[in-house]
Amino acid sequence: MNFMEKEKSIGVFDSGIGGLTVVKRIASALPNESIIYFGDTARVPYGSKSNETVIEYALEDASFLIHKNVKAIVVACNTVSSVAIPELRKRFNVPVIGMIEPGAAYTAKMTTSKRIGVIGTRATVNNKAYSKNLRKYIEDVFVIEKACPLFVPLVEEGWINKEVTRQVAREYLRELVEQKIDTLILGCTHYPVLYDVIQEIVGKETVLVDSGIAAAEAVRADLSRLGMETNSRARGRIEYFVTDIPATFKEAAQIFLGKTIGEVVRIDLEFLKELKLRIIETNNTK
Amino acid sequence: MNFMEKEKSIGVFDSGIGGLTVVKRIASALPNESIIYFGDTARVPYGSKSNETVIEYALEDASFLIHKNVKAIVVACNTVSSVAIPELRKRFNVPVIGMIEPGAAYTAKMTTSKRIGVIGTRATVNNKAYSKNLRKYIEDVFVIEKACPLFVPLVEEGWINKEVTRQVAREYLRELVEQKIDTLILGCTHYPVLYDVIQEIVGKETVLVDSGIAAAEAVRADLSRLGMETNSRARGRIEYFVTDIPATFKEAAQIFLGKTIGEVVRIDLEFLKELKLRIIETNNTK
Repeated sequence: MNFMEKEKSIGVFDSGIGGLTVVKRIASALPNESIIYFGDTARVPYGSKSNETVIEYALEDASFLIHKNVKAIVVACNTVSSVAIPELRKRFNVPVIGMIEPGAAYTAKMTTSKRIGVIGTRATVNNKAYSKNLRKYIEDVFVIEKACPLFVPLVEEGWINKEVTRQVAREYLRELVEQKIDTLILGCTHYPVLYDVIQEIVGKETVLVDSGIAAAEAVRADLSRLGMETNSRARGRIEYFVTDIPATFKEAAQIFLGKTIGEVVRIDLEFLKELKLRIIETNNTK
Repeated sequence: MNFMEKEKSIGVFDSGIGGLTVVKRIASALPNESIIYFGDTARVPYGSKSNETVIEYALEDASFLIHKNVKAIVVACNTVSSVAIPELRKRFNVPVIGMIEPGAAYTAKMTTSKRIGVIGTRATVNNKAYSKNLRKYIEDVFVIEKACPLFVPLVEEGWINKEVTRQVAREYLRELVEQKIDTLILGCTHYPVLYDVIQEIVGKETVLVDSGIAAAEAVRADLSRLGMETNSRARGRIEYFVTDIPATFKEAAQIFLGKTIGEVVRIDLEFLKELKLRIIETNNTK
């Protein structure tokens, strides 16, 4: 393994800003690794788009990360993870880590009653991505999935500790509590911001699974298997790229990371499309 | 005036589905007119996008309506109305009716205390579009604008008559009530769905302005001025076109129109881009 290869950054992309909760988990699990974050804020949300459109956009987003020379790609978005992983793995020669597989594998270790709840956006729940994956890991598993579309705007509004947020959570989670689940997957990267509220509603005996933690562990395992961990002992850098106004992203980032971030660079969508054409063509003729 | 010209449809476009409340108002004010609705559901929401992007998309959306041979274009979206109207008027030779100007003019007739509230998406409020327009119509006007980002997902969730919706509304509207406004502009096409809840919170002495009603009156005035009203005595047809999955749109349409709708046709984004190039080039060489 070339020395320089190990010092490349980990690439993380999301349709917008939610992926920052995953960045937080990776930075905490692998503090010496550098991270390049790409948020497609101009085209967020992907959840209301068709699968073909999501795959198309995901290939463009990943092409940007490849252009930035990353050693692994983390798909920090459950919607994209549920539809685009096979295509991304086919097109790119670096490890591609999604949210669903690690989250499901982690959940399999945590559940004892095999009664699992999954909450996410409408797209993730409609795709039944977690249910399908959980069945691979747990025999006779009972899964109940519930879309919670108001959680994302509540988080983005910064209404984390409000009574109205608790009321919305109670409304959404009632069914899951009644079904006596012992493990609840937070199947959307925004939801860890509401961790405490959700834990309060489902009760402290229910295990909450933050797929970001599971994904960070999967990244660690992949890098270790490939001998690609950094040798650096310094804290890694985090760079941010978005497709719409950086100011809006910077403001919202504080809610997700709990701290202010430095420079955010805007990337043009046309450039992104060009990159995809160029990079995918090169890969295919290898 | 050519007889056939009068029998063309009125074109209405929006970034998604909210414009249906405007369709409802136009159909009610001008029941014999036919309407072509275009919802850019693949790229919704526009509110988080830059002004240049919104203008670009608006030109594409309007090009589709021109391609369908409409006699007027209604911009049934406050965000688009606040940034793209001048460009649309420059490019197309039909009347272009937005939400902001008619809404502001209507408000000027309703207020007695000259203390006006405006609620809308973050983009509309940040653009201060209503404030600027109200100042044209009312001297010494006091305007307080408030973004209510949770109203759109509450409507789309169908949570119209729930206690939690009332609580969110109370939270958002408290400031406006304290400022003793006498008129409140519903500056987002989703909000008329929450009319009753909002009226309850602000009190029945506060006049609510549904810009859709004002826009429908503006359409009537423009068609009349140009001698373009239909001669038909039959109920007009309404046709629906969207850029993403028609099924999702059809389902949600029921919340907005209070009834099921017929066929919804999906339009490809690439075709839209081509249309824009073709139509705008033709117009410019006229």
